[in-house]
Amino acid sequence: MTDVLNQIKEFSERFNARLEALFQMPEGFERRTVEAMRYALMNGGKRIRPFLVAKSAELFGLNEEKSFMAGASLEMLHTYSLIHDDLPAMDNDDFRRGKPSCHKAFDEATAILAGDGLLTYAFEILADSDYEPSIKTELIKKLAQNAGAFSGMIAGQTLDLYAETAKDEKEPLKLIENIEKMKTGCLLRYACEAGAIIGNAGQKEREALCLYARKIGQTFQISDDILDVVGDEKKVGKTLKKDDKQNKLTFVSLLGMEKARELEEKLTSEAKEALEIFSSKAETLKNLADFIISRDY
Amino acid sequence: MTDVLNQIKEFSERFNARLEALFQMPEGFERRTVEAMRYALMNGGKRIRPFLVAKSAELFGLNEEKSFMAGASLEMLHTYSLIHDDLPAMDNDDFRRGKPSCHKAFDEATAILAGDGLLTYAFEILADSDYEPSIKTELIKKLAQNAGAFSGMIAGQTLDLYAETAKDEKEPLKLIENIEKMKTGCLLRYACEAGAIIGNAGQKEREALCLYARKIGQTFQISDDILDVVGDEKKVGKTLKKDDKQNKLTFVSLLGMEKARELEEKLTSEAKEALEIFSSKAETLKNLADFIISRDY
Repeated sequence: MTDVLNQIKEFSERFNARLEALFQMPEGFERRTVEAMRYALMNGGKRIRPFLVAKSAELFGLNEEKSFMAGASLEMLHTYSLIHDDLPAMDNDDFRRGKPSCHKAFDEATAILAGDGLLTYAFEILADSDYEPSIKTELIKKLAQNAGAFSGMIAGQTLDLYAETAKDEKEPLKLIENIEKMKTGCLLRYACEAGAIIGNAGQKEREALCLYARKIGQTFQISDDILDVVGDEKKVGKTLKKDDKQNKLTFVSLLGMEKARELEEKLTSEAKEALEIFSSKAETLKNLADFIISRDY
Repeated sequence: MTDVLNQIKEFSERFNARLEALFQMPEGFERRTVEAMRYALMNGGKRIRPFLVAKSAELFGLNEEKSFMAGASLEMLHTYSLIHDDLPAMDNDDFRRGKPSCHKAFDEATAILAGDGLLTYAFEILADSDYEPSIKTELIKKLAQNAGAFSGMIAGQTLDLYAETAKDEKEPLKLIENIEKMKTGCLLRYACEAGAIIGNAGQKEREALCLYARKIGQTFQISDDILDVVGDEKKVGKTLKKDDKQNKLTFVSLLGMEKARELEEKLTSEAKEALEIFSSKAETLKNLADFIISRDY
């Protein structure tokens, strides 16, 4: 476990160095928005998504250099969503990973533009990458679908906003499962699928990775809900106990703590089982599943 | 002139029918954001940009069906920028084309998500289109660059926000030229270049179209500034005389009305000259340049 944590930490150091090099700062006043983009992107994220891309691609013999652009574009897209989610009109969060959120460090207009800029740049660097054209277009299409408003991340955020007023919802568990699946699950799933795409994986391998990703996505959300109740604010780096105060529907509020933990265990086993076809090559991904359930931040 | 206006009108009717068909509405509550996307997109825009794509592509023998996806994605991207520009934290405009702007018709959170959704969908439909993979990736790369935060549309919007406080700016004309070039010019230029890309145009033809687009882009901004002073609100469909009230730097406030009109004439001639290599095939694009300078809305 310590091992996978160290691997993620070392990976993120290499990843961050390459990521920062993608930001050639403009000279004029337009620099402000690019600075806000870089601020939000270099704000201490764990880089779980690019790590998933890299480790999935590694199963098919690709090194980190080859998976970098797919991981970088995904991390940009993830970061744009955090910037916009934190805005006053959305979740109104003043802090992100213990630091002022983008609209607090800059201003609202700049934060909106910085989010737009990262979303746009995510597609630009993919289109401009060294992958084969047909691989690039598949990555772009899948990324856009998984991030999109029809059944991707934006759809999940829309549902999440709705859920705050959905006191009379008849199937609350189904609702929060749907939110999780679209809001956070889609991008985690894409991370593993992207690794399979650039690795020219067969259908069976690709499906195994997608299944694994779905399972750890659910575990991630449940453990987030658990951390909101039992976590240490300093370690987690954001305001906790918010769900209860806001009367929010969560896996813990709906299932109770015990059942939530049981479900987490079950999903983690299933995630690891999904990777059996890769045998020992997938050790790190399996350890990552164990890490998610055991993390205290 | 009436001729080109009719052509644009007829084109936009065909275009709108195809555009609306791209919106398969989701069943759940996530529908709300997709409805806001469609509302903003079907809000009576003139479709100048897709018309430019279509007419540029036509120079190389492509029919409207072939240029549709390039035009549709560009119009989505343009519409997202209008939704976000209208937000309270940005230009705070309650009306757009005579109707409530997106955040007024829905709410701020939905408008932010609808803008994000259109930007994302623009890249999805390009990646999923029938063009050759290498053409798709070139379109996506160019679109993202021209819309981006480094030297594209978002950079222009950043400069525009800055210009509102730039009372002591030493080179105000250069500043507003830069704003125009990036904020509106980049996407107009892309429209013509996209037509050249999908038409497999030679370098000379592509450059001619880009030059034409730069010239009409400038004319477009100058005539916008002129309309703000002398236009009829009912015809233009938005609040006018705002620039003067807000003490905004414009081509009219900096050059005076007479010089602004002279510059407009000069640019229109140059735009038409740029198209000489296409001889009579480019008649419609030349007429469009004349229309821009003569429009009263």
